[in-house]
Amino acid sequence: MSDLPRSPLAPDHFPPMLAVPGVEMGAVAAGLKYKGRPDLLMMTFAEGTRAAGVFTKSKMPAAPVDWSKHALEASQSLVRGLVVNAGNANAFTGEKGLRAARKTAAIAAGVLNCEPDQILLASTGVIGEPLDVTGFKKYLPRINGGLSANMWRDAAKAITTTDTFIKGASRVVEVGGRQVALSAIAKGSGMIAPDMATMLGFLFTNAPLTASCLHRLLQQGAEKSFNCVTVDGDTSTNDTLYAFATGGAFSQDLIDDPEDPRLENFKKAFFAVLIDLAQQLVRDGEGATKFVTLRVEGAVDEQSAKKIALTVANSPLVKTAIAGEDPNWGRIVMAVGRAGEPADRDKLAIWIGGEEVAQNGLVSPRYCEETAAEHMKTAEIDIRIHVGVGKASATVWTCDLTHGYISINADYRS
Amino acid sequence: MSDLPRSPLAPDHFPPMLAVPGVEMGAVAAGLKYKGRPDLLMMTFAEGTRAAGVFTKSKMPAAPVDWSKHALEASQSLVRGLVVNAGNANAFTGEKGLRAARKTAAIAAGVLNCEPDQILLASTGVIGEPLDVTGFKKYLPRINGGLSANMWRDAAKAITTTDTFIKGASRVVEVGGRQVALSAIAKGSGMIAPDMATMLGFLFTNAPLTASCLHRLLQQGAEKSFNCVTVDGDTSTNDTLYAFATGGAFSQDLIDDPEDPRLENFKKAFFAVLIDLAQQLVRDGEGATKFVTLRVEGAVDEQSAKKIALTVANSPLVKTAIAGEDPNWGRIVMAVGRAGEPADRDKLAIWIGGEEVAQNGLVSPRYCEETAAEHMKTAEIDIRIHVGVGKASATVWTCDLTHGYISINADYRS
Repeated sequence: MSDLPRSPLAPDHFPPMLAVPGVEMGAVAAGLKYKGRPDLLMMTFAEGTRAAGVFTKSKMPAAPVDWSKHALEASQSLVRGLVVNAGNANAFTGEKGLRAARKTAAIAAGVLNCEPDQILLASTGVIGEPLDVTGFKKYLPRINGGLSANMWRDAAKAITTTDTFIKGASRVVEVGGRQVALSAIAKGSGMIAPDMATMLGFLFTNAPLTASCLHRLLQQGAEKSFNCVTVDGDTSTNDTLYAFATGGAFSQDLIDDPEDPRLENFKKAFFAVLIDLAQQLVRDGEGATKFVTLRVEGAVDEQSAKKIALTVANSPLVKTAIAGEDPNWGRIVMAVGRAGEPADRDKLAIWIGGEEVAQNGLVSPRYCEETAAEHMKTAEIDIRIHVGVGKASATVWTCDLTHGYISINADYRS
Repeated sequence: MSDLPRSPLAPDHFPPMLAVPGVEMGAVAAGLKYKGRPDLLMMTFAEGTRAAGVFTKSKMPAAPVDWSKHALEASQSLVRGLVVNAGNANAFTGEKGLRAARKTAAIAAGVLNCEPDQILLASTGVIGEPLDVTGFKKYLPRINGGLSANMWRDAAKAITTTDTFIKGASRVVEVGGRQVALSAIAKGSGMIAPDMATMLGFLFTNAPLTASCLHRLLQQGAEKSFNCVTVDGDTSTNDTLYAFATGGAFSQDLIDDPEDPRLENFKKAFFAVLIDLAQQLVRDGEGATKFVTLRVEGAVDEQSAKKIALTVANSPLVKTAIAGEDPNWGRIVMAVGRAGEPADRDKLAIWIGGEEVAQNGLVSPRYCEETAAEHMKTAEIDIRIHVGVGKASATVWTCDLTHGYISINADYRS
């Protein structure tokens, strides 16, 4: 956790979290970088638990990313444990870094009595410093001795770095006539962009899903959530989103088809939990004072709508205008143009907080700048853009770019 | 010009500028937005002058961009005048904006006794406000009455908006046994990115070139200069780079082939002038305190090298680290990975100010952080990256991201 004050956009409190049958957790202060706070998390899973992962698209992936991709394949997605450390990313650490990852998995496998390939990993923190895992021989058994199904706060805290609040989301939903739980935690505040910037997210459920079904849901969910948020457009070496399905309590067969009607409500809840977490990351955006919902409509297809929305959301000129509470829609026009996607300049329309700013490629005759300026003073900003060439739409979430962002990133070494 | 203090990275003085035979100029204070400074420029060209243009790739181009593309085609690149105004971009102004552009060309054509299609235009300033050109009927004849071959300072000043210094570059060079002049002016300070962000650049020469030769040289030159600089990654609706070749004083035939040996020195000077101007834009980057030269080597091809270099140069985390004088090379690794271009993590090498920071995907055993930190305290930062997969290289120029950038863009409406 950061020493900085809690983000003004943070939710009131960490939500009530459901235990997920088959999932236990524990965390300790291993002193990897931080003092006096948990920074090493182990989660354990009942036999038969399926896992899926979505990883950073960085060409410089960290050692735990390399390891976990291998492990998911080698274990055929049947995993028993997850070990996460904060403070050291174990990235750009060469062969030594991969050895540290292997050793972590081996220690955890010894403790949990499974194969090393059944252990997934994630790390977050400083790049380029060797990760010393010798202490894990002491800490992982200690965690294993005190596992609990309900230590979500400790778990959420153990994975934070520059976060100013801990992040979780939980839902209960019916699948095939039985209630199942969905609980998830995440971390991240800067370097957050599509393609999974420095963020870690872990979702747990006891729904009866095959690994392939879980993987497809996770990919769809990532597109609708973590790949729709951006703080600064940067992407990290370590980004990882995992989903785990214990399915243990069910006697019925595992569901393999994401379109299976029994999953209708489950999918909604699954996506809602991911979107909730992704929005929490934006609410903890470094220096953020405004939470911005940016909707693009009238695009040729969804992908194009999303690209336009993300270009506007990543524009430093748009983000600083929002910080300055200035309804400077000229910068929005500029950013839409920069996206390079199909858009009709002479049909472009823009709304700020519901106020019609521009229509048909011109400032609207009805536009009242005072009304838009009032909306810009609030903490929750809504911008809607119609690009006039089709029927597809996309929504992304971002925050403003403030002096706080510069202070955090120029004045401290994170 | 901005009220802000002159950029600390500005050159000592505006350079001595050569007159270009066949080119005259004049500027007046038309009061379009600013008071008490020239904001309307007219340049005139001898008969037979060829022009070429490279324009913004924005999907929301301003009316003067639309007009000038049309005019270049309709006049077969034989132009007689250029009219530029600062303070109002005449962008996102619909049919009215196009009418204002047409009217400006018609007034100038009347004054210069040529076809409207022989008049090129450029505008820079606020987006979305109608441009009232009725005053041009009075101002353009007034300018025409006082034209001079050497009012470069006034010309350079008349096109500025948020610039903190005026920008020019000039060279003399031999073509086919005769000396020719190259003089150019530019404006720009924010919204500067590849693909010609808010910048205007105008180059003038009396070299004997066909329009097609001039156009190809200008495209090549833009790739090596304006498309290699970035301040904030944003791109404007109005970016325009023009080159004009009067060729008038020459009896010899016009040169049509850019590879003609007679152009060897000319090309070098032509590119050098464009690079000089492009670097001046970076030196005037909003809030900039560091001028950064970023070289990527070992890429699969030049385009890939440039994409990696620009991704690093645009990374807010890299730019804020530079502002903080922190040799935070982990962020450079992150940004290289984010570029998505071929790069070998385990061969990556990084130098900061000549100090070897990383080699073979690891911090270098010889790395001395103090040496790198000393370099980061200077105003001219050199970063070199070898990505270990090929032999191609590219150099780009950028500046740091500071509180000054936020203040300029969040606290004022530009």
